[in-house]
Amino acid sequence: MNRQQHLDMLRQVADGKISPEDALNKVVLESFEDLGYAKPDHQRALRQGAAEVIYGAGKTPEQIGGIAQSLRGRGCETVLVTRLSPEAAEFLRVNFAMRYDALSRVGIIGKTPEPDGAGVIVVATGGTSDIPVAEEAALTAEALGNRVTRLYDVGVAGLHRLLGSAETLMSARAVVAVAGMEGALASVIGGLVSCPVIGVPTSVGYGASFGGVAALLSMLNSCASGVSVVNIDNGFGAGYLASMINHL
Amino acid sequence: MNRQQHLDMLRQVADGKISPEDALNKVVLESFEDLGYAKPDHQRALRQGAAEVIYGAGKTPEQIGGIAQSLRGRGCETVLVTRLSPEAAEFLRVNFAMRYDALSRVGIIGKTPEPDGAGVIVVATGGTSDIPVAEEAALTAEALGNRVTRLYDVGVAGLHRLLGSAETLMSARAVVAVAGMEGALASVIGGLVSCPVIGVPTSVGYGASFGGVAALLSMLNSCASGVSVVNIDNGFGAGYLASMINHL
Amino acid sequence: MNRQQHLDMLRQVADGKISPEDALNKVVLESFEDLGYAKPDHQRALRQGAAEVIYGAGKTPEQIGGIAQSLRGRGCETVLVTRLSPEAAEFLRVNFAMRYDALSRVGIIGKTPEPDGAGVIVVATGGTSDIPVAEEAALTAEALGNRVTRLYDVGVAGLHRLLGSAETLMSARAVVAVAGMEGALASVIGGLVSCPVIGVPTSVGYGASFGGVAALLSMLNSCASGVSVVNIDNGFGAGYLASMINHL
Amino acid sequence: MNRQQHLDMLRQVADGKISPEDALNKVVLESFEDLGYAKPDHQRALRQGAAEVIYGAGKTPEQIGGIAQSLRGRGCETVLVTRLSPEAAEFLRVNFAMRYDALSRVGIIGKTPEPDGAGVIVVATGGTSDIPVAEEAALTAEALGNRVTRLYDVGVAGLHRLLGSAETLMSARAVVAVAGMEGALASVIGGLVSCPVIGVPTSVGYGASFGGVAALLSMLNSCASGVSVVNIDNGFGAGYLASMINHL
Amino acid sequence: MNRQQHLDMLRQVADGKISPEDALNKVVLESFEDLGYAKPDHQRALRQGAAEVIYGAGKTPEQIGGIAQSLRGRGCETVLVTRLSPEAAEFLRVNFAMRYDALSRVGIIGKTPEPDGAGVIVVATGGTSDIPVAEEAALTAEALGNRVTRLYDVGVAGLHRLLGSAETLMSARAVVAVAGMEGALASVIGGLVSCPVIGVPTSVGYGASFGGVAALLSMLNSCASGVSVVNIDNGFGAGYLASMINHL
Amino acid sequence: MNRQQHLDMLRQVADGKISPEDALNKVVLESFEDLGYAKPDHQRALRQGAAEVIYGAGKTPEQIGGIAQSLRGRGCETVLVTRLSPEAAEFLRVNFAMRYDALSRVGIIGKTPEPDGAGVIVVATGGTSDIPVAEEAALTAEALGNRVTRLYDVGVAGLHRLLGSAETLMSARAVVAVAGMEGALASVIGGLVSCPVIGVPTSVGYGASFGGVAALLSMLNSCASGVSVVNIDNGFGAGYLASMINHL
Amino acid sequence: MNRQQHLDMLRQVADGKISPEDALNKVVLESFEDLGYAKPDHQRALRQGAAEVIYGAGKTPEQIGGIAQSLRGRGCETVLVTRLSPEAAEFLRVNFAMRYDALSRVGIIGKTPEPDGAGVIVVATGGTSDIPVAEEAALTAEALGNRVTRLYDVGVAGLHRLLGSAETLMSARAVVAVAGMEGALASVIGGLVSCPVIGVPTSVGYGASFGGVAALLSMLNSCASGVSVVNIDNGFGAGYLASMINHL
Amino acid sequence: MNRQQHLDMLRQVADGKISPEDALNKVVLESFEDLGYAKPDHQRALRQGAAEVIYGAGKTPEQIGGIAQSLRGRGCETVLVTRLSPEAAEFLRVNFAMRYDALSRVGIIGKTPEPDGAGVIVVATGGTSDIPVAEEAALTAEALGNRVTRLYDVGVAGLHRLLGSAETLMSARAVVAVAGMEGALASVIGGLVSCPVIGVPTSVGYGASFGGVAALLSMLNSCASGVSVVNIDNGFGAGYLASMINHL
Repeated sequence: MNRQQHLDMLRQVADGKISPEDALNKVVLESFEDLGYAKPDHQRALRQGAAEVIYGAGKTPEQIGGIAQSLRGRGCETVLVTRLSPEAAEFLRVNFAMRYDALSRVGIIGKTPEPDGAGVIVVATGGTSDIPVAEEAALTAEALGNRVTRLYDVGVAGLHRLLGSAETLMSARAVVAVAGMEGALASVIGGLVSCPVIGVPTSVGYGASFGGVAALLSMLNSCASGVSVVNIDNGFGAGYLASMINHL
Repeated sequence: MNRQQHLDMLRQVADGKISPEDALNKVVLESFEDLGYAKPDHQRALRQGAAEVIYGAGKTPEQIGGIAQSLRGRGCETVLVTRLSPEAAEFLRVNFAMRYDALSRVGIIGKTPEPDGAGVIVVATGGTSDIPVAEEAALTAEALGNRVTRLYDVGVAGLHRLLGSAETLMSARAVVAVAGMEGALASVIGGLVSCPVIGVPTSVGYGASFGGVAALLSMLNSCASGVSVVNIDNGFGAGYLASMINHL
Repeated sequence: MNRQQHLDMLRQVADGKISPEDALNKVVLESFEDLGYAKPDHQRALRQGAAEVIYGAGKTPEQIGGIAQSLRGRGCETVLVTRLSPEAAEFLRVNFAMRYDALSRVGIIGKTPEPDGAGVIVVATGGTSDIPVAEEAALTAEALGNRVTRLYDVGVAGLHRLLGSAETLMSARAVVAVAGMEGALASVIGGLVSCPVIGVPTSVGYGASFGGVAALLSMLNSCASGVSVVNIDNGFGAGYLASMINHL
Repeated sequence: MNRQQHLDMLRQVADGKISPEDALNKVVLESFEDLGYAKPDHQRALRQGAAEVIYGAGKTPEQIGGIAQSLRGRGCETVLVTRLSPEAAEFLRVNFAMRYDALSRVGIIGKTPEPDGAGVIVVATGGTSDIPVAEEAALTAEALGNRVTRLYDVGVAGLHRLLGSAETLMSARAVVAVAGMEGALASVIGGLVSCPVIGVPTSVGYGASFGGVAALLSMLNSCASGVSVVNIDNGFGAGYLASMINHL
Repeated sequence: MNRQQHLDMLRQVADGKISPEDALNKVVLESFEDLGYAKPDHQRALRQGAAEVIYGAGKTPEQIGGIAQSLRGRGCETVLVTRLSPEAAEFLRVNFAMRYDALSRVGIIGKTPEPDGAGVIVVATGGTSDIPVAEEAALTAEALGNRVTRLYDVGVAGLHRLLGSAETLMSARAVVAVAGMEGALASVIGGLVSCPVIGVPTSVGYGASFGGVAALLSMLNSCASGVSVVNIDNGFGAGYLASMINHL
Repeated sequence: MNRQQHLDMLRQVADGKISPEDALNKVVLESFEDLGYAKPDHQRALRQGAAEVIYGAGKTPEQIGGIAQSLRGRGCETVLVTRLSPEAAEFLRVNFAMRYDALSRVGIIGKTPEPDGAGVIVVATGGTSDIPVAEEAALTAEALGNRVTRLYDVGVAGLHRLLGSAETLMSARAVVAVAGMEGALASVIGGLVSCPVIGVPTSVGYGASFGGVAALLSMLNSCASGVSVVNIDNGFGAGYLASMINHL
Repeated sequence: MNRQQHLDMLRQVADGKISPEDALNKVVLESFEDLGYAKPDHQRALRQGAAEVIYGAGKTPEQIGGIAQSLRGRGCETVLVTRLSPEAAEFLRVNFAMRYDALSRVGIIGKTPEPDGAGVIVVATGGTSDIPVAEEAALTAEALGNRVTRLYDVGVAGLHRLLGSAETLMSARAVVAVAGMEGALASVIGGLVSCPVIGVPTSVGYGASFGGVAALLSMLNSCASGVSVVNIDNGFGAGYLASMINHL
Repeated sequence: MNRQQHLDMLRQVADGKISPEDALNKVVLESFEDLGYAKPDHQRALRQGAAEVIYGAGKTPEQIGGIAQSLRGRGCETVLVTRLSPEAAEFLRVNFAMRYDALSRVGIIGKTPEPDGAGVIVVATGGTSDIPVAEEAALTAEALGNRVTRLYDVGVAGLHRLLGSAETLMSARAVVAVAGMEGALASVIGGLVSCPVIGVPTSVGYGASFGGVAALLSMLNSCASGVSVVNIDNGFGAGYLASMINHL
């Protein structure tokens, strides 16, 4: 409920069309549903994107199902579920039409919308092991109405692989750069393109990669401009932000 | 044995009613029972609360049972056991009347006391995944004689959910704010209420949440006054402290 | 503006006594003054304590003076300024009647209120070097209307010093335990008393104290119940919270 | 030199219009000038924005002047210099028409361009102490052709201050959220708006803020979607990225 | 394709022998094969060593097999696979002649080449538990055409064991020093020999060894000259670098 | 071989009693046996204690058996094996007379020697969960010929339990203080006794105990004199050092 | 006051020789003097060593002087002041006969006692830069009545320097090993001697030495038995402990 | 003194040409000079390189002068002094012919030797601010007899600058890659060349660069083979190792 809507409602109060008590309840109570264990946010669905998202980790299959039911009941056509275990996916499939990608552990309930973003989002990875996180980003972007091009295994130790796709990169509206180990991919891409680059450090690596910290620090300290960073392994966050940029 | 009791005993020594040797032993030996592997503290039971507590992690079911037996034998009506595994709970149930909450892994031996605290303790969480820790806090507070209101999944990314419960928050005598990820819940609640807010960072999250460190640092650096912090996932500590405040 | 006040205002709108536009502006604009570089919070002053607080670090003397002027102009009788450099104190003294404690870098503009808290707050330190932080806590508590007892240099390596003040500790309504190095003071006091203990780790120490991290971790992991922690060197936060508890 | 330009040049080689040796040199040598201590990138200036940027830290005044001269000589109308010490600013002013903001240590050589971005960029801070970093972001965005609205001291401990500017926030095309301490500002704004939010953790704070690490982790773990993060105190990076988004 | 080859090709374009379009494709496309999930680098195989390497961790057996097939198809006689699980080894053996060392989890497909390096590489360990990492280094060096001498369990707490092999060490062309715990082996060997010493910290140890961090820091801070360090447990990297030095 | 023995041997060379070649081999080769995977140190056995020690972690049962055989063959009457898994213990029992303590995972092959140390070693723990580490210390000390007194569960949150054993502590020749969580036990004991206190931080705890780091830092920063620290969970190291002190 | 003394006093109470009130006061009040800012511990002086110690850091010259006066007034012949700034030393010299070593910032008030320890303490350093910390240890040991041998600049990168002093090391009753950078000195010495080795990591080094952390971790993970560790740069602690061992 | 020399000496003892006592002293005493505060290593000078090195940090000008005198007196023609403050340089110039580079704080006493290494060492930096560390590496290599090519400001955000020098890089015998911030330079160069790459992370950067830790981790996790790492800012170590490789 933005300022204009708030003002309209206050005018209705002034006109005696609704009581003050009703007005106050309306502000608060219509914006979400209280399931006890969760309060799915119906206001956010209208405001921020085509699909509503459920973060699956730390929730029981029953809880995920309950939230999905609540969202679908309010008219949400696409529900994206991330970090969805195969067991929970099995459970959800009983009640919902859902596509499930086991690699990225992403489930999409309902239909995948037609792409309506302004351009193309490129999702690139440094290596083969980064693909699960990259797919979380790519599927998120697709579920939110974007065309996605995948460029996998183009790490900086073999620059010709990356430079061979320079045209693809340069024509993107946003690039999601997914890399573990030293995470230099974001910087090198950032130096090549003139659109926003969203770095996703991955926990791929061993020893002093410290579960993605090396890549995270590398990306935060990028010497290229236009690079920002999301949490380690947060493919969803990068795909969501890329979609937001692509729909401006 | 406080100063007055110590003085009384010394007077009895002076009056020849008890010998110096007995006096010294009395000071030390009556305050706890020595089970070898543990020394349950009977003095503390009298001093600090209605119920005595056993921290279950790192103890065998037999050890937990032995300590519970010792406490019960000294007249302790309620024994709270935290971090109690389902297997140990099974073992304890053979000998004790015990309620067990599998989610928070809390067991309550004996009766739950009537609430005798001055007000209401609110336990709030940022998300659904924080509920196990929150329940440890809530059940602890209830076992120590408090009325508890639960506000779950009111994280700061959807402020209307939190603001919708502003009245509940403002009428609390203490608030336990349980949150993982960025842990901003404590700060936002701290800005809304005028009672103590006890922040409990949880290990919920991934990547750069570092098992609760992000939430911990966030809460320690809260820009709101009246916020203090307990250890990561330490629902018990928060519930205990909230009870202490509610019984002042 | 709490729910009741909000409802009252909405009723006035319903009665035509104030216009919807005015109502909306009133909600937002009366709660703080916009100085451009700062937005002093007049709502908070009414809600949370006897005195309003300015955190002096990172602000120019002119900015501190401007905020103080704004608060005083709204009727705030006591303004506490923490982390106030001697130079800024010099500047403020030109325009304000202010007491300044150079050790703790605390300034108190206006009168120090009569103690109206329920009991006594004890501020204890492990060593002599912790006194500046302890004084920030003690002066904050005094400025907010509390009686304070100081117990300095009672670190755990010489237990008799601490036990010699056991009665003082046991009669407190809240204890602020200020310690650097290994920070064990909070745990030991927590085992002695039955009131809340607020641990303040200090950056006193060297080497592996890591600027207070050792004491911070020690206090967070306290094996005593009833202990919570504020940020390293945050004497103000501890004093504020202790006052809040003492005024319940 | 993109694929098309590369192809054109190769065709000129095929047509005998330029020799192979000249072609190869052209590819490499025209793209930057080699000053020995620095290789200013003329290719980037054309590709990525209206102004070219010099990162002033770790460079002598003479080096900064030399690079600026090189850029100006190639036709760059606006040169932004960040982390510019007052002494170096003094030195540059002898040879260049430059505006210098001492607070943010930003210098702008040449003219500030007319805003040509699609919308407005909002730069918000949690507190007064975050303003220097915020100004680096705001001045960078202005130097790159953007309209900027400043919202300072709207930290989450006084939500009404932030909510009072909700309309301003909601009409932004990108928001730069600058905050130290617990850094919750990015999450709360991220929950309010539907445009990208760029979090800039600042090194403002003390103790367990660890020079901005607490705010950094908090922002990386934001529970709000659409939030990404740049390096601690990196106002420039945030302003640059916001401009890039505003010019899509 | 180095400068000379690039120039030759451009001359062929100038002579009309190949078209510009073909030239450009040739540069990019011949350098690797695109398998979708991976882009094996054929250019690198020619450039850097006798054998090509596949890092097995995070890849499915099918992916490893596909990459190996691609490399073998291009004429690579020896393919080294590191971090190869027993299950994946089982899978590969169906289609490839492969030696597999279960301790170090190294597989060698094809023939092990004759040693053609200039001297001998010594691989030393501090303890028995470091042997798996040491064997990864030794087998890598052997697969790349080097003679290797193994010196195991010569940690610094029993100097006579190390000094007893001083001659062996002093005659090496490169030494790989593999050690966990305090990692002092690299420093002590570095003081004895006049060839490069490559330190490999291992994750062997417990408590404050922090998974190899203690050894890593120890080696990075070596007071001996000529010591450099690779990632924790990175036996492959050390063996590869030692081979490179031995083939100069 | 100390300086005197070295000199004697050189004199035998000068007298022609042994050849230079034999002398050199003798120095190096007699000091240990080379098993390939390990080089058991016979010199150390003579020099440093009654029993020889095998660190069992990271070694196969066969390797442990082989080293034990080598030591026994050289006349070592007692062999202590630490970090010995139940499976490896099972394996060793086939060939050796061995006592095995499953809690501390310590095995003692051969006879436990009669105590010949000067005094008594006290091993104290903060809690019940610290007992496994404490037993590693106690059994090590006993295997090396010391009388040991165990004081378990005497943590600082219940000081009377510790003070009740003050006499036991004060009569010790060395104290091993084993504690996790905040690790304050070492400081408090250090303030009570006048003999060396060896702190052993344990990985007992959760959240911000960081696997023993909190206790480690606490003990390193002890404000009591006479306290030194060994690695986290290193009961063996503490028991060994305490024995060394007790045999001076 | 140990158990015997306590018992004696209780007997006097029983005999009516002293009143209970006096007895209680006597226990507490005679053990230290309360200076307000400090509580010098007279009990400890009797119990733990020949000299009493003042830790000078974080205390004003006046406070140090006041504590020294108190200790001298109680009959303490030697007062050791550590971390004493030149300015404070200047101040103290007005009132006390004091030797001051500017390198280690140690002051000794009163006479240095005759050595009465059982053997010799060796203080060794890895490099020249570690000497200030080593001198703090050596002077502390001397002030507490020990003979000290200094072995400086015997780091492990030049083993012959250390081995050249093997006899000196082997005849020590305790060795203090002072080293920064990789801190391997403690391990190597620990392998050579059969007496306790006290490791003192120093903050000497740069980059990844992290102010002594590398050396600290190295020493904590020593593969040699008999090594324990004190805080970074804590020469005093090592000297004190070595003296304690030398006086057993 | 290697095995052969040791054997020769023992034969002289056997022949009665030298006494056993003299032999032993000779082994130890001739290898270094004992200055008390330092033990310059004459054995190392003969063994490891053309020049001897003094690490200047933490040493007084007098100590540096004394060591230099000792080395020169033994016939060392070139003495390299690193981390030499301008004040100490001033002091040394009185007695020694010395070149001093203020940027890298390197002093070279005596003559710079003619290059006698096998090839060329390339020293590359990511930015202008990395030059001081790079010069330490380059001057070290030159003082040890190497030809050095400098490639400065070729960071990965502008790949064409680096690729423009690909031939120079590919013809090197060793590359020193000096970079702060995200440190990706080492990986990208490592992918281009077939000689060893020595990464030197620098402390250049701010915020989450953590004084070079980001670059250090990035380089340790390099996905390119043939890359090893030295300590942060350790230009000397990299130059020394590169020289060692160039002289094999």
